[in-house]
This record gives sequence, structure tokens and C-alpha cells, in this order.
Amino acid sequence: MIEVPILWYLAPIGSISALLFAAIFFYQVKKQDPGNERMQEIALHVREGAFAYLKQQYKGVGIFFLLAFVVFQIMAWGLKVLHPLIPFAFLTGGIFSGLAGYIGMNMATLASNRTAQACTQSLNKGLKVAFRAGSVMGLTVVGLALIDISIWFYVLNILKFPLEKITVIMLSFGMGASTQALFARLGGGIFTKAADVGADLVGKVEADIPEDDARNPATIADNVGDNVGDVAGMGADLYESYAGSILATAALGMGAVTQIWGNDTSMLLRFITAPMVLAGIGALLSILGVFIVSTKEHAGTHELMFALNKSVYTSSILIAIAAFFITKWMLPADYYFGVFISAIIGLVAGILIGWFTELDTSHSFRTTRSISKQGEYGPATVILEGIAVGMRSTAAPVITIVVGILLAFISSHGFESIEMGLYGIGFGAVGMLATLGVTLAMDAFGPIADNAGGNAQMSHLPEDVREMTDNLDSVGNTTAATGKGFAIGSAALTAMALLAAYLEEVRNGFHLLELKLGKIPYLNINYSASISDRIPVSEATVKDFITFYQINVLNPKFLLGIFIGAMVAFVFSSLTIKAVGRAAGKMVKEVRRQFKEIPGIMEGKGTPDYARCVTISTKGAQQEMVLPALVGILTPIIIGLLFGVAGVLGVLVGALTSGFVLAVMMNNAGGAWDNAKKFVESGKFGGKGSSSHKATIVGDTVGDPFKDTAGPCINILVKLMSMVSIVFAGLIVGYSLHLETIKPPLSSTGLKKDMHNWVEWVSESEQQLIEASQVQEPVNTHKSDSTKAIKP
Amino acid sequence: MIEVPILWYLAPIGSISALLFAAIFFYQVKKQDPGNERMQEIALHVREGAFAYLKQQYKGVGIFFLLAFVVFQIMAWGLKVLHPLIPFAFLTGGIFSGLAGYIGMNMATLASNRTAQACTQSLNKGLKVAFRAGSVMGLTVVGLALIDISIWFYVLNILKFPLEKITVIMLSFGMGASTQALFARLGGGIFTKAADVGADLVGKVEADIPEDDARNPATIADNVGDNVGDVAGMGADLYESYAGSILATAALGMGAVTQIWGNDTSMLLRFITAPMVLAGIGALLSILGVFIVSTKEHAGTHELMFALNKSVYTSSILIAIAAFFITKWMLPADYYFGVFISAIIGLVAGILIGWFTELDTSHSFRTTRSISKQGEYGPATVILEGIAVGMRSTAAPVITIVVGILLAFISSHGFESIEMGLYGIGFGAVGMLATLGVTLAMDAFGPIADNAGGNAQMSHLPEDVREMTDNLDSVGNTTAATGKGFAIGSAALTAMALLAAYLEEVRNGFHLLELKLGKIPYLNINYSASISDRIPVSEATVKDFITFYQINVLNPKFLLGIFIGAMVAFVFSSLTIKAVGRAAGKMVKEVRRQFKEIPGIMEGKGTPDYARCVTISTKGAQQEMVLPALVGILTPIIIGLLFGVAGVLGVLVGALTSGFVLAVMMNNAGGAWDNAKKFVESGKFGGKGSSSHKATIVGDTVGDPFKDTAGPCINILVKLMSMVSIVFAGLIVGYSLHLETIKPPLSSTGLKKDMHNWVEWVSESEQQLIEASQVQEPVNTHKSDSTKAIKP
Repeated sequence: MIEVPILWYLAPIGSISALLFAAIFFYQVKKQDPGNERMQEIALHVREGAFAYLKQQYKGVGIFFLLAFVVFQIMAWGLKVLHPLIPFAFLTGGIFSGLAGYIGMNMATLASNRTAQACTQSLNKGLKVAFRAGSVMGLTVVGLALIDISIWFYVLNILKFPLEKITVIMLSFGMGASTQALFARLGGGIFTKAADVGADLVGKVEADIPEDDARNPATIADNVGDNVGDVAGMGADLYESYAGSILATAALGMGAVTQIWGNDTSMLLRFITAPMVLAGIGALLSILGVFIVSTKEHAGTHELMFALNKSVYTSSILIAIAAFFITKWMLPADYYFGVFISAIIGLVAGILIGWFTELDTSHSFRTTRSISKQGEYGPATVILEGIAVGMRSTAAPVITIVVGILLAFISSHGFESIEMGLYGIGFGAVGMLATLGVTLAMDAFGPIADNAGGNAQMSHLPEDVREMTDNLDSVGNTTAATGKGFAIGSAALTAMALLAAYLEEVRNGFHLLELKLGKIPYLNINYSASISDRIPVSEATVKDFITFYQINVLNPKFLLGIFIGAMVAFVFSSLTIKAVGRAAGKMVKEVRRQFKEIPGIMEGKGTPDYARCVTISTKGAQQEMVLPALVGILTPIIIGLLFGVAGVLGVLVGALTSGFVLAVMMNNAGGAWDNAKKFVESGKFGGKGSSSHKATIVGDTVGDPFKDTAGPCINILVKLMSMVSIVFAGLIVGYSLHLETIKPPLSSTGLKKDMHNWVEWVSESEQQLIEASQVQEPVNTHKSDSTKAIKP
Repeated sequence: MIEVPILWYLAPIGSISALLFAAIFFYQVKKQDPGNERMQEIALHVREGAFAYLKQQYKGVGIFFLLAFVVFQIMAWGLKVLHPLIPFAFLTGGIFSGLAGYIGMNMATLASNRTAQACTQSLNKGLKVAFRAGSVMGLTVVGLALIDISIWFYVLNILKFPLEKITVIMLSFGMGASTQALFARLGGGIFTKAADVGADLVGKVEADIPEDDARNPATIADNVGDNVGDVAGMGADLYESYAGSILATAALGMGAVTQIWGNDTSMLLRFITAPMVLAGIGALLSILGVFIVSTKEHAGTHELMFALNKSVYTSSILIAIAAFFITKWMLPADYYFGVFISAIIGLVAGILIGWFTELDTSHSFRTTRSISKQGEYGPATVILEGIAVGMRSTAAPVITIVVGILLAFISSHGFESIEMGLYGIGFGAVGMLATLGVTLAMDAFGPIADNAGGNAQMSHLPEDVREMTDNLDSVGNTTAATGKGFAIGSAALTAMALLAAYLEEVRNGFHLLELKLGKIPYLNINYSASISDRIPVSEATVKDFITFYQINVLNPKFLLGIFIGAMVAFVFSSLTIKAVGRAAGKMVKEVRRQFKEIPGIMEGKGTPDYARCVTISTKGAQQEMVLPALVGILTPIIIGLLFGVAGVLGVLVGALTSGFVLAVMMNNAGGAWDNAKKFVESGKFGGKGSSSHKATIVGDTVGDPFKDTAGPCINILVKLMSMVSIVFAGLIVGYSLHLETIKPPLSSTGLKKDMHNWVEWVSESEQQLIEASQVQEPVNTHKSDSTKAIKP
């Protein structure tokens, strides 16, 4: 066991504190007035529906995890291409993520009626309950992710695992978290939109009853959907981003230290633990952030919004200061400042993206209003304008990310050491997400307020309570833009860092094969016949791997992988959109049936069969989430087996770039359509009931699966594909059909075999020969330089 | 002057024959019965409108070309980063392309009334006139492109230009053709959709008069639009693809020969001329193909369709056979068969993509019918289903292209010599497009039939004539799928080949700087201090450039370029969609005004002001095409100046992959929406006037700019960006801020500077020193191997 730096203990301390405060806030909210009997009954319906869904969801996901666990065991013990602990790491990642979703939803479903009740007193009271409930979600996610990381790290370290093994094993619980996140987002997204569309299409349009009307059988399902999609889904999503960024950065620290300092364990330990420490402090600052919000007691809407934003900005500034000291204390003098700057860049990029999102989707600004205006010409022009807005809106976030990544890379000395530059990029993501506890709380209180509104409506509370919950909802929507910016920005940064982490796992894949074959792998680059031109895999840098696998622009396997990756992002979106359509179709039929068959339902005398609608949404979500998830999981494996490592990296790059742009487009188009409709509803361009309104409703309906299902899922998809590649790296190295595994006949014609590199497996006696031959040469100072320059 | 292979003369012979037959067919069509006075008058209106537009368009484009010409002159004589002949090559590329569009449209506008008149006799007669007119377009494009290439090649060869210079200069007239094509497609696409939407929205929906009604002021503009968009636009588009594929392949032949055979001029000549010869034979076969169609005299619709398809398939089989003999006679024994197989793969890929397009967009199949069915639920579900269909439909073409490119690369020995593999990919594109004369004729007769229908309607010909022209139109739509497949497939292949051609131009950029500075450039790779580790630029392979510029997955400049490229495809689409919207808005206002202000217009007594609508569409198109075109042209230059060669290649890869997928999505979604509407109109799901019909009309309106403006323009955009990069390669090499131009201080810490490569400019005396040092070494046999392996 290696002594960890004392600062590391901030990680478990931060996580335990976060969980502690989550528990405290949970009971604080729970002991609030739950409202009258009707309110409690409605809330209970939603709560039961939500738990019924979650039970079903976890059962389905559980089966998947079990199957994956079996496959991993075969890979670990049968094919020996996986470390035996990885299946367990995978499981804990999934379980903790699921647990976070469960706790968050438990809180959210308790909070809806309590928020509604609080709103009968004052807007501020309502905000406080909703925000506290949201912060339970935020702190739980942060706390559970960080405690999972801390425990694994501590235990593996005690068990004397070498550090490079520890980072490898831990990274793989990212895959558990991503899988859980994809299912949660997909299932939740399909559930909520099926119920939403079903409720609206039959209730609002056909039967002409208002939204959230208790006579509508799908209305409870709709409220359940807000919980399972926006609360549990988003929780799992950000759990994954958060854990992924910390773990990927730790893995990259491995590469950076090895390249610059060689086998310096103490240095390695500092690089690996630094992101955990930053996250730990971030968790503590998040708790502080939650309290900052709660100090304001008697404020108006705008002041509340300011208070909320202030809390995010304060924690951002504090985490920036903390990042300075942590990097200064933990990292070497030549490098800490660059890495610190990277963290700042990450933070700023996140805030900027949130800002641009706001500009392009809020109806306070021109862009969204232009969509409302098109309503005058009918639905077609609303759709065209929305799509155009969505596509155009990709420019600012892409440029922000591009500039941010480049600056983070440069400031972390990336041009001198690629590995250090990548570590900086990862650190930027960690900086951005360090205060997730409070930014997620911002995000989560929106759906809680939404649900409170539903509760108020169905319980026939006075109109002004409904107005207050709507106000809360709109405050939530505004502050949520920042949260979204962080989520999108960190996803891009983390995915970029995972590309490099993947190459580290390729090395590990070779190591596993080495253990299996009892021979040592050497990379034979550029069809060289010379024995001295071989690089032992254990000493190969990331750059050597790139040369070996020819992961460059003219390798068709790489380039075509990019094509496939781009295509997968589109096909995946198509599958999710169609899934929503199919599930919604079933819901429409059911609601129509109930309206026809249940006597007295329209007069409020007959009770609608709420549970049946919940079941339909649940079943629909469960069936429909399988195919898109499989596309994401299987593509990198299949392409890997066919095209090898270069193909996999191509797929990841294609999915990352196209997926990022497509996700921003769909999120922003969806958000803009939603708000364009709200703008018309606020009385502009004819107001409610006008033909403009009808046209913008079409836009909103199209936007729903864009922004709540396909868009958010793509971000997870991209990271899940990276995680799958990482876990399957050993399989691809050992079993792919790629040409690197075949030793070609040496050419006698003088024609260089441009793309025939191969691996040479040598026994120990052969190895001594090679080493002897290499010592004879006056190699230049860079031990792992693939281009061996010889001085004459 | 080097003696060209005798077979080369097939290129000028083919092109002159094509032009000759185009002239014959032109006069054959012209002497057909032009119909009654009314028909001639309507046709004249359209003809005048079309020429008025074309005049305006060419004026605008002329100004742009003039400006570009001046900029190029400055680059050539001032900065000395461009060969002085390139501005002229650029001009001829643009002028010949414009000429092809002019002739094609001249024919098309003469053919509309003649086709309508022929339809009064028989369907077959109508088809013959329309198809002959279409083949004038096809043969003109092929003839002009090939004659341009032949003349430049012949003259430069006579003037004793070295072959490598010839390929470089000629490639740059690809930029002229691409620029012309982008403007033609953009301007035409905006014009036609503005007129279409304007005519439909006010005429059909508001005033309730049928399509192509003479009372509608926008109806002439609508028919003009079919000509300028679908005829002239498509002609320029395919002119560019055709010339681009031949020129890019010739340029790649240069690299392949240099790498394998060194300075073998006769071999080089064979590689450079082979694609021209194949194209020449293709031109001859196209003429044959046109005649095959015309043999069938008294057949029904299905037989006609079969006859049309037969002609494409026959020419495809014949070109395949020709490709075998050409490669066998012209290329060396070890390589010809692989290159031949590449050509076959190209052909098959083109046919397959056409087939998949048909499956996903024709209402004979399930996919499109599923959209019609969604009409029952309203416009929102129609839109969602169409987008889902479009996104899903990207899978088959992408997989076809991926497999095709990979197989072409492998079969042409790409794993042994990247350059040979790329030559094979280029040859695949040439094979696919060799019979363009006949496939383009298939494409072009559709809009002619469409216009004939308009003419029949406005001239109040009997209903059954309109029915026949509609039948012709639908025959055209079906056969056009194959043409589209060829266009899309060849665009991807050509763009891929252009990536490599770009690197050849980078070498040329160095050469220009060498002339300017009087010093010789050496690539210093991997921060090596060793004098012997330098590679003279003139001997560097494509692979050396990749190593030098680090165009690999972990270079942030490359990766972020991919992000930018993907984003540009989306932003460009957004701009074109909004351009259509704005231009259509103006048209709507004008049509409304005329309906209100011109007395007796609705009773058919007042004459609408057709010309004014044409002017509005013309102006709209001219204004709106500037911004999207500038985005395409400036992005690679700006990114190049900031991020260097790696950034440029990233942008090209990102735009190619995302752009390809996005273009397929938009084309297919648009096509499917169009046909879904037609399916409902044929009486299904309620038929004309039902709510389903209204919902599918919304889909069709959204799809119009997708499939006729944004989608087709993206393909051109991608190639234009490549062409711009190629022409500006010298500027980027000499003036970009990228780090390769800065010589870093040698590190004494032992830390390898991962990304600090630089160019060393040495005088001739220094060069002798270097060469002496390199001779001392026992370098391995591969003269340009960047990884110099030393035997102990």
C-alpha cells in the first residue's frame, strides 16, 4: 500500500458531507406540510407510478447488467482479455448510479405536494422547498459518485494494486454508470414524452380539457414522466459525467507521469488523486452554495433568480480559487499553473455555453421570437425556422468548446507532452463539474416545481398557486441553462479525454494478452525488418500507439470509422424519435378508449384508470429503449472486431463530433420551439387559441422528443461508446481482424508496405537479445521516441 | 513535350463526339412541333424568365470570379504562393461549367412546349422529346468538362510543363467548377423554392386555384425555377463532380507513381491519362446509351422505364468491360487488376445507393407510406416520422460508401502503398461517373417533363395531356434515383481523394516558397536535433506529411477541425433554409399584392405581372446565396491560417463525414415527405383535401428546402471546401500561425517536445552537408521512410 497524499482525504470527506447534508435536507423537506388529503392522494398516485416505473426499469436494467456481468466474466476468465475485478467495478458504477436516481426521485415525489402547499403561503416558501428537494438530488449524485470512487481507490490501494491497474479498473465503472445513464435517459425520455403527447393530443386537443386535468387518464403518467425523465434520468446522466470526468482524468494522469517522470510513484499518486481532491472540495462548496440560496428569505422572483445564479457563480469562483491551491500543492512547479488554467477554462466554457443556450432558446431574445412570428404562416414555417435556429445555434457552443479545448491543451504544455495536454483537458472537465452538487440542484428543482403545478391543478387549488408554481418553473428553466451548459461542455471534454484513455487501455489489453501467452509484445512499426526498431508495448507512448495503429487522416479504417460514428448519431436519434412516436401512439389509443368506455369520466364522476396509463408508458419505454441502447453498445465492438483500434477511434471521433453538434441542434431547436409556443401563449402574435398558437404547438410537439429524448441521450451515447471501447479494448487487441495482428511477408521489391505494422510476441530469451541490440545503438535521449534518430 | 499514350486521344475524341451529338440532338428537338400559339407564348415567358435569371446569376458570379481572380493574381505575383497559371485554370473551370448550364437550360426551355405537344400524340413521343432534350444536357456537361481537361493537358504538355505541375494546375480548375456549382445550386435552389412556396402558399392554399394556373403571378417563376434549379443547377453540380473526380485521380496518380516507381515519366503519364481515357470511352458509351433508349418506339410506361434503366445498366456493364482493358493496357501488370476492381466497386456502390434511396423515398415502399399514415395524427407526427426516416436512411448509404472505399483501397494495394490505394478510390469515382452523359440525361428529363406539364396546364390542353406529362415526371423521378446515387457516391469518393490531393498541394506550396526564398525546405520531424533526420520536402511521402503535421486523432488542431467542419455543415444548412424562407416571404407578399391590386386577375381577364415575380425570386436568390457561399469558402482559409494544415484537414474530414450524413438525411427526408403527400393524393388515408392531406402538405413544404436547396448544396460545399484548401495550400504553408513554422529551442530537460516539428530552410551549401551526412548512414531501402531503421 502506498501512502496517499493527506489532501486526498478531502474526497471521502466531501462525499460523506454531501450525503450527510442530502439526508438532512431530505428530512427537512419531508417534515413540511404535505397539504390536504386530495393533494396527498394525487402525490401518492404519482409516487406509486414513479416507483412502479423505477421497479420495472431497474428490473430490465438489472437483467442487462446481469448479462453483461456474465459476458465480462467470460472475457475475464475464459478469453482473459479483462481484469477480473472489472465486472465488479462495472456493477458498482451501475448500482450507485441507480441508487442516486432512486433517492432523487424519492425526494422529488415527496416534494411536489409539499411545494404546492408551500406556494399557498408564498413564492419564496415554495422555492425553498423545491430547491432543497433539488439539492438532495444534487448532493446525493455527487456524494455517491465520490464515495464509490474513494472506496475503490482506498481498498485497491490497501490491497497493494499498482496504481496503473487501479486507474484501469476504476475507469470501467464509468461503463456501469454510462449504461445506467443511457437506460435512465432513454427509458425516462420515452416514458415522459409518450405520456405527455398522449395526454395533450387526446386531452387538450380532442377533448378540450386543460393540462393536468384529473379527468385525463394520462395526466398522472405525465407527472410520473417528469420525475422519471427529468429527475431520475438527469441524475443518472450527470452522475455518469461527473464520475467519468474524474476517472478519465486520473487515467490520463497515468500517461502524463509515465511519459515525463517515468516510474515515479509519488508523482503518479499526486496526478491521480488531484481530480478527486478538487471534486471533494467542490462537494463541500456545493453544500455552501445550497446554503447561500437559502439565506434569502423574503425576495421577489427576480431577486430569487439572482440568488440562485449567485450561488452558482459563488461556488464557481470559490472552486477556481480552490483549484489554484490544489494544483499548486499537488502538482509539480512547472506544470501546476497550466493545469489550473485548464480548470478555469473549463469553468468559463461551461458558463459561456449555458449563456449561448439561453440566448438561443429563451423567448426573451430575438431568435426564439422569430419562430413565434413564423406561426403566422402556419406550422411548416415554424418547423423550418426552428430547425434553422437549432442548426445555426451549434456555432457558438462548438467554437467555445474548440477554443476551450485548444487553450486547455496548450496551457497544460500539450505541445510538449500530448499526455500532459490531455490531462489538462480532463482537469477542465473536472473543474466544470466540481460544483455539480449545486448546479444539479438548479436543474432538478424545475421538474419538481412542474410537478407541484400538476398537483395544484389536480387538487383544484386556487389559480394563484398554479401561477406561483408556473413562476417557479420558469425560474428553474432560466437557471437550468447554466446547468445544461456544464453538462454539454463537460461531455465534450470528457469524451475527448476518454479517447486518450482508450489508448491507455489498449496498452493494458496487450498486458493481459502478455499474461495469457507468456510472451512479451513488441510493436513493430513501419514494416521494419530491423530487430532494434521494435518498441516494447509497456514503454510505448500514446504517440507510438498512434503511429503503430496509423490513426491518421489517410487510414481508411480511421476515416471510415468517422463516417460510421457520424451515421450512428443520426440513426440513434432516429430510433429514439420513433420509439417516442410508437409509445405515444399506444397511449393515445388507451386514453381514447377510457374516454369512451368509462362512464361519467368527463363529468368528473367516473375515476380514470391512471395506473393503466402508467403501465403503458412503462412497458413502451422498456421495450423501446433496448434497440437504441444496443446500437450504441454494439457499434464500437463490431467496428473494433472488423477494423481494429483505428476503426474504434474513428467511430468515437465521428460520434463525438457529429453527435455533439446534432445534440446541441436538437436540444436548442426543441427548447426554442417550446418557448416560442410559450411566447405566443403570453399573448403575442394572436395569443392562445390563434392559428399562430396552433402552429407553434406543432413546433413544440416536434421539439419534445428532440430536447427531452434524442438530444440528451446523444451526449450519454457518445460517452457510453467510449466506455464500451475501453472495457472491450483487450478483446479488440486480441481478437480483431485488423491487419496489425498479421505478420506480412517481408517485401523484397523495395516497395515499402505502408500500412503493415504488426506485433511481435517474443519470449524472454528473445527479449534479452533485442535489448542487447538496442543498447548498442546511440539512441537519442527520448526513450520512447518512435522515430529513432541516429547521429552519424 | 512528352509523347502521350495513343489511347489518350480517346479523351478529346469522346468529348468532341459528345458535343457533336449534343448539337445534333439539340436541333432534332428544336425542329419538333412547338405547339399552338398559347403554348409558345407560355414557353417564351418561362424562357425569358430563365435567361433573365441566368444573366443576373452570371453577372453576380462573374463579379465573384473577377474578385477571386484578382486575389489569386496577388497570391501568384505578390505573395508568390500560387502558380501564375492557376487563376486562368480557375476561370476556365467556371466558364465551361457556366456554359454547360446555359446550353442545358437553353434546350430545356425549348423542350417544354415541344414535349407537351408531343404528349398530345403519345406518351412515347413525349418521352422521346424530353429524353433527347435531357441528353443534350448530359452530353454537353460531359463534352465540355472533358474538352476543357483535354485542352489544358495537351497545351501544357506541348509547352513542356513537367507533369507534376500539370496535375497541380489542372486540379485548380476544379475550384472554378465547384464555385460555379455552389452558386448555381444555391441560387437555383433558393429561386425555385421561393417561387414554389410563394405560388403554393398564396395560390393553392389562400386563393384555392390549382397548381400551374396561369392566373397565379408566381407560376411562371415556379416553372423558371425548375429550369434554373433542377436543370442548370444540377448540370453545374455534376460538371464539377465529373471534372473533379478525373482531376483528383490524375493528381493522385502522381503520388502513387513517385512513391513506387520514382521518377518514371512514362509510367506517370499512364497513371495521369488513364482516368481521362476511361472518361473518354464513357462519353462514347453515353452516346450509345442515349440511342438504346430511343430504339423502343411503341411501348407502355413500364416498358419505357425498363428501357431507360436498361440504357443505364448497359452503359454501366460496357464501361466496366472498357475499364478492364484500359487498366490492363495502361497500368503495370501488378496493379491494373486492383484498380479495375476499384472502378467496378465504384459503379456497384453508385447503383446500390440509388437503390436504397429509392427504397426510402418512393411511395411504393413501406417507409414513405408510414409517413403518409402519420398524417392521421396531424402535421407534428408527419414531421417527426419524416425526420426519423431521413436519419435512419443514412445507414445504408454510409455503410455502402464505407465498404466501397475500403474495398477499393484494399484492392488497389492500399495497405502496401497508401498512394496506390487512394488512386484506386479516385478511379472508383471516375468509373461511377464515366457514363454521366446518360445518367444525367435521366436526371434532366424529369424537370423538362415537369415544365411540359406546367405548359399544358397553363395552355389549357386536355386533361389527359397533363396526365401524360405527370406520368413522364414520375418515370423521371424513379430513374433519377440511380442518378442521385451516382452523384452522392461519387461526391464522397472524390472528396476522400481530394483529402490526399490536398497533401500533394502542400508539397507544391513548399516548392513555391522554395522558389521565393531561394532555400530548400526540409521537414524536421519529432523535434529531432539530428541533421540526418531531416526529410527534403520534395521526397516526402504523403505519410511523411502526416507525421510532420501530426494529422492524427490526438492532435487537437485536427480533432477540433473536425468539430468545426461538422458544425459548418449544420450552419450552412441553416443559412440556406433561412434564405429560402426569407425569399419565399417576399414572394408571398408580392403574389398577395397582385391578387389584390390587379383588377380581374382571378377571372382570368387581368394579366398577372409574371416578370415581377421572376425578378423577386432572382433578387432573392442573388442576395441570399452570398452568405452561405462565403461560409464555405472562408472556413478552410481561416482555420488554415489559425490551425495550419492539420486544422484544414480536420475541417475537411468533419465537413465530409457530417455533411455527407446530413445531406443524405435531408435529401431522403425531403423526398419521402414529397412522395408521402403524393401517396395521400393518390387517394390513400383520406385522399386530397383530407386532414391527412393537409398534414402531409406541411411535411412537403418542410422537405422542399431540405431536398432541393440545403441537401444538394452540402455535397458541393464539401468539395468546394476541399478545392479552396487546395488552391490556398501555398498560402497556408507560408503564412499560417501554426507551430510548424516556428523553430522551438531544443529542450535540455530530456522532455520530448511531442508536437514541435518544424521546417528547416537550408541553402544549397548546407544541403550538400546534409546529403553527405545522410549518405554515411546505412539507411534501409525505403528512401522516404520517415522512421529510419538502422541495423546494428
